[in-house]
Amino acid sequence: MTQPPDPVELTRRLIRCRSVTPEEGGALDLLQQVLEPLGFVCHRLVFSEDGTPNVDNLYARLGTGSPHLCFAGHTDVVPPGNPDDWRVDPFGGEVVDDAVIGRGAVDMKGAVACFVAAASRLAAGRGGEPGGSVSLLITGDEEGPSINGTRKVLDWMRERGEVPDYCLVGEPSSGTDLCDTIKIGRRGSMNFELTVHGTQGHSAYPQHADNPVHRLVRGLHRLTGDRLDEGSEHFEPSTLQVTSVDVGNPATNVIPAQATARFNVRFNDLHDSTAVERWVRERVEPDAPRFDLAVRVSGESFLCTPGPLSDALSAAVEEKLGRTPILGTGGGTSDGRFIKDLCPVAELGLKNALAHQVDERAPLRDLRDLTDVYEVALKRLLAC
Amino acid sequence: MTQPPDPVELTRRLIRCRSVTPEEGGALDLLQQVLEPLGFVCHRLVFSEDGTPNVDNLYARLGTGSPHLCFAGHTDVVPPGNPDDWRVDPFGGEVVDDAVIGRGAVDMKGAVACFVAAASRLAAGRGGEPGGSVSLLITGDEEGPSINGTRKVLDWMRERGEVPDYCLVGEPSSGTDLCDTIKIGRRGSMNFELTVHGTQGHSAYPQHADNPVHRLVRGLHRLTGDRLDEGSEHFEPSTLQVTSVDVGNPATNVIPAQATARFNVRFNDLHDSTAVERWVRERVEPDAPRFDLAVRVSGESFLCTPGPLSDALSAAVEEKLGRTPILGTGGGTSDGRFIKDLCPVAELGLKNALAHQVDERAPLRDLRDLTDVYEVALKRLLAC
Ligand SMILES: [Zn+2]
Ligand SMILES: [Zn+2]
Repeated sequence: MTQPPDPVELTRRLIRCRSVTPEEGGALDLLQQVLEPLGFVCHRLVFSEDGTPNVDNLYARLGTGSPHLCFAGHTDVVPPGNPDDWRVDPFGGEVVDDAVIGRGAVDMKGAVACFVAAASRLAAGRGGEPGGSVSLLITGDEEGPSINGTRKVLDWMRERGEVPDYCLVGEPSSGTDLCDTIKIGRRGSMNFELTVHGTQGHSAYPQHADNPVHRLVRGLHRLTGDRLDEGSEHFEPSTLQVTSVDVGNPATNVIPAQATARFNVRFNDLHDSTAVERWVRERVEPDAPRFDLAVRVSGESFLCTPGPLSDALSAAVEEKLGRTPILGTGGGTSDGRFIKDLCPVAELGLKNALAHQVDERAPLRDLRDLTDVYEVALKRLLAC
Repeated sequence: MTQPPDPVELTRRLIRCRSVTPEEGGALDLLQQVLEPLGFVCHRLVFSEDGTPNVDNLYARLGTGSPHLCFAGHTDVVPPGNPDDWRVDPFGGEVVDDAVIGRGAVDMKGAVACFVAAASRLAAGRGGEPGGSVSLLITGDEEGPSINGTRKVLDWMRERGEVPDYCLVGEPSSGTDLCDTIKIGRRGSMNFELTVHGTQGHSAYPQHADNPVHRLVRGLHRLTGDRLDEGSEHFEPSTLQVTSVDVGNPATNVIPAQATARFNVRFNDLHDSTAVERWVRERVEPDAPRFDLAVRVSGESFLCTPGPLSDALSAAVEEKLGRTPILGTGGGTSDGRFIKDLCPVAELGLKNALAHQVDERAPLRDLRDLTDVYEVALKRLLAC
């Protein structure tokens, strides 16, 4: 048995690995070096696909028992921008004012280090193996195209029958206070481009023309006036925002032949993208006999109904930090959208305020607290 | 006493004068040469204004008695375009297939010639003077900016107390058949540019933004859904046509700060431009706390209630051509909009189909018929 790693030191060492997507930068090697002596069985999984860079991933599991909790994270980071804009070297892993500063400090090398530290303590306390089993799925392609990362590791796990009972994603979910929010789902997002066709003519003789702008206005009036829903238990109401309308007709005496609008829909768990598209078409069709609708789905909505995973995380936060986290569904997408098809998933990590920004930093206090919360949650879930 | 001029020959001679606005081209000189021997007292009125070309105009009156009918017309023409596109020289005044071909044949050297011929016959028949009096107001600036033309001649007439009882405008009012339509008014026209202001934001968080497109859509929905009116006795319903909507926002995740629409209103005698602007503002204000509205009035609507002038013209058409003209208000603007403030005005002239086009032409038959119609109308109006 080796000593469990210190979360602050491990965070600093990870930051020193220059792992800007898709570079591994030594970050996965480092984790493997820490995890193997603790009893984790490690697999390095390199995936490639035409037109995308090769990506290195790590899957490490401790124990074979049930229940099986998987921690999903990434060691790749977005570029630091101009290093001169930073107070210190973004890859130096320095501590300034009681915080680790560096690219990836909160998104999400810090949380990876916290989880490794928490799982190691558990392993150490139990003589090498917890009651159930703990695994880590660490990808090098979360900030990039997300093609050769989590999605392909999940396929590999499915094939081997490595299906976890729960998955904890370490993305920075916290707002003002550490662990004030646990994310249990995400809204879906779709972009539409609607072009309504009419018949060009002279504005003095509208009876000989068919104004597509008027038809579009009636459709948009319905789309922006009707509500998709009133929200659901864990989601805000779905929203539709028109982002542009463009005709580009400079002639005041000409009725144009077509008019185009673009809009974005953020939708909750009461719909899937097919239903949203149907809802949109129903509101356009009555006034537009001829239209084109281009639809791009950025992601489906999902919700993992609160259960043992979110209960254990909430209880751990209450025990260690004395606050009750909100079960939220706001914000952008994460790899949780792929994992939710395999098992219940929840996200809990550091504060998101400085993710992807200059002087990204994690207070030492937060790193130690998050490690404690992860440890307690692990104990509750694995009943050990 | 000289012989009354032949309308066909006078049309051909007028076409040979190259009087593209603002050039006089000898056209007014020619008319003066024809009218003076018949007893018309002629005044040449040259007006100028900073930034506009000098314009030559002719006012000619026969007799001083009452009633006084004034014929308003113009000898200036729009450019012929590429002369090679024409069957014959656009300034040759040639006769092909029983029609005079040339720029201005129908708009409106032909009608000017017809009226001069009709008035001359009347003068000849009455021994030099009709019972009342007949005048011609011929401008060289109808197709141009219309600043130094009819408007200024009317001011000059007002100052001299030369206020006619009726005014006949010779614009090409006829559609399919000669004299099938007498115009007794025109719709007004206004152009609007409406910019609605909101607050920019991220399309995922509309609660932190204020989408100006949605506000604009609600305003446009009202503007295009509500009707200004149901038409009046001599007018079609007023119309509003949105000609462009423009935002120009390429980012699908950004709610823009402002949105602009442009629309054109053609309005009848139930409104003036002030009332139309008020009607528009009332439909925008409820949904747009911050907006800019630019308004440009191209012309007010007007109607000259049917009376002795239109009665005499209708009766003349019926007597000479066996058809009953429609009293219409369609089409674009003419100098009638200035004259209507002085006396009742009506427009009756040749067919408008080829006005401003290549191979503009007036059938010889139409020129002779219109001369007859003008002559009968003159006799009826002046009771001679
Ligand atoms: Zn991340
Ligand atoms: Zn004209």
